[in-house]
Amino acid sequence: MTKELPKAVVLLSGGMDSATVLAIAREQGYEAYALSFRYGQRHSAELEAAQRLAQELGSVEHKIIDLDLTAIGGSALTDHEIEVPSSPSEGIPVTYVPARNTVFLSIALGWAEVLESQAIFIGVNAVDYSGYPDCRPEFIGAFEAMANLATRAGVEGLRLKIHTPLIDLSKADIIRRGQALGLDYRLTVSCYDADEQGRACGVCDACRLRRKGFEDAGLDDQTLYR
Amino acid sequence: MTKELPKAVVLLSGGMDSATVLAIAREQGYEAYALSFRYGQRHSAELEAAQRLAQELGSVEHKIIDLDLTAIGGSALTDHEIEVPSSPSEGIPVTYVPARNTVFLSIALGWAEVLESQAIFIGVNAVDYSGYPDCRPEFIGAFEAMANLATRAGVEGLRLKIHTPLIDLSKADIIRRGQALGLDYRLTVSCYDADEQGRACGVCDACRLRRKGFEDAGLDDQTLYR
Repeated sequence: MTKELPKAVVLLSGGMDSATVLAIAREQGYEAYALSFRYGQRHSAELEAAQRLAQELGSVEHKIIDLDLTAIGGSALTDHEIEVPSSPSEGIPVTYVPARNTVFLSIALGWAEVLESQAIFIGVNAVDYSGYPDCRPEFIGAFEAMANLATRAGVEGLRLKIHTPLIDLSKADIIRRGQALGLDYRLTVSCYDADEQGRACGVCDACRLRRKGFEDAGLDDQTLYR
Repeated sequence: MTKELPKAVVLLSGGMDSATVLAIAREQGYEAYALSFRYGQRHSAELEAAQRLAQELGSVEHKIIDLDLTAIGGSALTDHEIEVPSSPSEGIPVTYVPARNTVFLSIALGWAEVLESQAIFIGVNAVDYSGYPDCRPEFIGAFEAMANLATRAGVEGLRLKIHTPLIDLSKADIIRRGQALGLDYRLTVSCYDADEQGRACGVCDACRLRRKGFEDAGLDDQTLYR
C-alpha cells in the first residue's frame, strides 16, 4: 500500500479567512476537500471566489451544496428585507445567520464520514469575530464532542478533530500568515454586499475588518472597491 | 399581554415516529412548527405524508427545506447506486445517512432561534434504533450542550432543550401512545422504498420494525403493502 495523504474537509466561503485556512491545510500535508454553500447569499461573487481558490490552492474536490437558509430567515445576509448596516452595532449583529456554522459543520461532518476523513478545517476567529456566538472556542469544542458521538467513525473509535488554525489570530496575523504561504488575497471576496464583479462596498463590518487587517499588517490592501 | 403558547420546532419525516412526536408536542401544549427535508430520498410519499400530518395535527407552519444530501452520498437512502437490503445486517446499516440527524437538528436550531423557541422535538429512539449512532441519548445530550453555545439565545442565557419523547419506548409502546392520542397511522409512511402511492415494500428494516410494532402492541397493522 502506498502512503496516502490524510484527507481534510475545508469549509471555504471565498473570503480571506477560509482561503487562508485552505492554504494552511495544504501546507500541513492534507488532501483538501473544499466545501461551500449556496445558502441564499446576497451575491454570487463569494462562491465564484471559492471556486477560483479551490482550484488555485490544489483541492482534490470542491463541492457547492444548495441549502436555502432564506427559508428560515433571521439575518441581513439571508433575509433580503433586512438591511446590511454600514456602521458598527452593539452586541450580536444582524448579519449573524442563525446556526450557520453549526449547519455548515454538520454537513462537513457528513462528508468527512463518507470520505473517512478525521479532519475538518474552519476559519472561525475569536479575536475579530464580529460577536457571532458560533465563532467561539467553547462552541467548537462542544461541536467536536458532539461530532464524535454522531457518526459511525465515533462508534468505531476514530477521533474527528475540528481544526481552527485562525482562532487566536488577529486579522493582521491572518493576512501575514496567508501572504507567507503565497496566497493572493485579490482572489478572495469578504464584502457582505459585493457587486456582480466582486467589487467590495468598503463600509460593511467585513470590509472594515479586512481593510483594518491590511493596515495593521502594514501591507497594501489591493481589494477592488467600487 | 395575552398568554402565548410556547413554540416548538418538530422534525417531521412523515414516518410513524415523528408523527407520534408531533402529536405528543401538541398534547404538551406547544405550538408546533413542523420541519421536513427534501434531501434526496428515494420517493416523495414520505414528504406527502408529512404534509398531511402537519395539517391533520394542527401545526402552525410546515416548512420543507431543500438540502441535497445526495451530493455527499454514503447511504442507500441517498445514493441510488447502493441497494436497500431486504434482510437485517450486522452493525450500522447502509441505510444510515451520514450525520443526518446532526444536519436536521442544526437547521431546526436555526429556525428555533428565529422563532425564539426553546424546544426542538425529534423522534429518535434508542430501543428499535436500527444501529444508527445519531439516535443515542449521549448524542442528543452532546447536541443540546453544543446548541446552547451556538446561538444568540445561548449567549443571552436562554436554554434550548431537545425533546426526545420516544427515546426509551419500544415500537409497540410508540404505537400505543400514538393511538391513545388519536393518531391515525395510515397517514404515515415508514418504508425506505415506498412506491408513488405510498405503498410499503414490507421487507426493508423500517417495514419490519413497523410490522413487528403493531404485532407486539396487539393491534391491527393497516399499512398498505404493495
